[in-house]
Amino acid sequence: MSLELKSSHRSFGGWTKHYLHSSKILNNDIRFAIYLPPQTSDGQKVPVLYWLSGLTCTDENFIQKSGVQRLASELGIAVVAPDTSPRGKDIPDQDSYDLGQGAGFYVNATEHPWSQHYRMYDYVLNELPTLIEETFPVNDIRSISGHSMGGHGALVLALRNPNRYRSVSAFSPICNPVSAPWGQKAFNAYLGPDMPDWAQYDASLLMLHTEHQIPALVDQGMADEFLEHQLKPETLKSAANASNYPLTLNYREGYDHSYFFIASFMDDHIKFHANYLNAL
Amino acid sequence: MSLELKSSHRSFGGWTKHYLHSSKILNNDIRFAIYLPPQTSDGQKVPVLYWLSGLTCTDENFIQKSGVQRLASELGIAVVAPDTSPRGKDIPDQDSYDLGQGAGFYVNATEHPWSQHYRMYDYVLNELPTLIEETFPVNDIRSISGHSMGGHGALVLALRNPNRYRSVSAFSPICNPVSAPWGQKAFNAYLGPDMPDWAQYDASLLMLHTEHQIPALVDQGMADEFLEHQLKPETLKSAANASNYPLTLNYREGYDHSYFFIASFMDDHIKFHANYLNAL
Repeated sequence: MSLELKSSHRSFGGWTKHYLHSSKILNNDIRFAIYLPPQTSDGQKVPVLYWLSGLTCTDENFIQKSGVQRLASELGIAVVAPDTSPRGKDIPDQDSYDLGQGAGFYVNATEHPWSQHYRMYDYVLNELPTLIEETFPVNDIRSISGHSMGGHGALVLALRNPNRYRSVSAFSPICNPVSAPWGQKAFNAYLGPDMPDWAQYDASLLMLHTEHQIPALVDQGMADEFLEHQLKPETLKSAANASNYPLTLNYREGYDHSYFFIASFMDDHIKFHANYLNAL
Repeated sequence: MSLELKSSHRSFGGWTKHYLHSSKILNNDIRFAIYLPPQTSDGQKVPVLYWLSGLTCTDENFIQKSGVQRLASELGIAVVAPDTSPRGKDIPDQDSYDLGQGAGFYVNATEHPWSQHYRMYDYVLNELPTLIEETFPVNDIRSISGHSMGGHGALVLALRNPNRYRSVSAFSPICNPVSAPWGQKAFNAYLGPDMPDWAQYDASLLMLHTEHQIPALVDQGMADEFLEHQLKPETLKSAANASNYPLTLNYREGYDHSYFFIASFMDDHIKFHANYLNAL
């Protein structure tokens, strides 16, 4: 697999790097960011926290604005943040922020014209970690987190593949996309109009029927403009209550949907994952 | 003085806000960011750290990328970060990143066409703190810091006005602009060709002859592409040695000129300033 280093910055004793690589699953190049903590310079293999970003984001937003490197450096955790979709002139797109490039929704699209490239579910689940674990000084102990559309992606990937991740967290996730405008628009385009096909990508529906439960943490700002119509954390909480799922849901007064919210509670999420990532 | 709130985000228990206001000194509007820590919600008046950004930056880069809010929240320090120049269609500009809008160099320009608006020295020294102290729950205890062009600005303002600030720090400052291409280009345009007029804006020259010395901390990355030709920290160190100035200069192996460097050592700078800001 070709792998092209696009930038490299020393960062909290480790390295923040951006790569471009050719993805077989996506039939296209895609970028990702990786933070390698200082422990990896001694040849130590560290666990990995995967981060999935929200609508319009690239591999840069989280890595520049969240402050994740500080505690990841201290606790010896690598962080991997892929772009939110393949990009380029050959990739189908639409003139809207919530469909097409920058809005992959972490599904495997089945519909024309999306199905050839929009397969972020398989990419994040399989191809990306295989590449990361073959290339960098990391082990195969993984957790996953994300924001908004990426919070949805993190929850769906973890709920469907609990043996692949030790823990899952999310900021302001789209908890019940089958009943939210963002989710309905994306699923209709990528998956077609059959709603039964949508359920495999809905965290609240999945949480009702998981076989193996891994710990989940969700933070939600109460001044988030998308809270009521798009995010619906109360639906996720109801599902967790019904299935006795170990979900901690924190509502944060006054916080909005921005990276200022994410940065404010990043340490809590890193510490949460560290409990499970470092327990071999 | 008119003051228009442009954005407001809850952030580490406090608030990150951006304002636009009409500046008399600059004859134009200018934006600034302010972080108000949670202590101010109880009516407590806190000290202020001023931050001056580098070439091409606005009031946003530092406030989004440095992670300053975390410790500022914990230690009860407000942070104010103005834009690097006035901006707009009526403001003289040039088609280059190192002169004109985004490149005010924290001087009072004397030359046409710059002199009517490019007076960032007086703005940062007088008008901005007056506005901040009249408007927000802060006291008149100030320190100052900055990056690159802004590190130059912070050092010059502190060295010339040691009674206005308790401490000064800088990341990768332009330490001897009279002998560096960036400084020579800017000073020639803003101040004219007479080099004696330039000395009042050169930290290395000023450090030789200060009457009252306040503590200074400088961090410099050793992989910084601008180190040798533009920044010249060794000249500042020589001046400090000659005048017995309390300067701590740290060289950091592998770090470059980016905000990844600033974020990595932000906590050190906040703690340094906190020693002096909180000592009434």
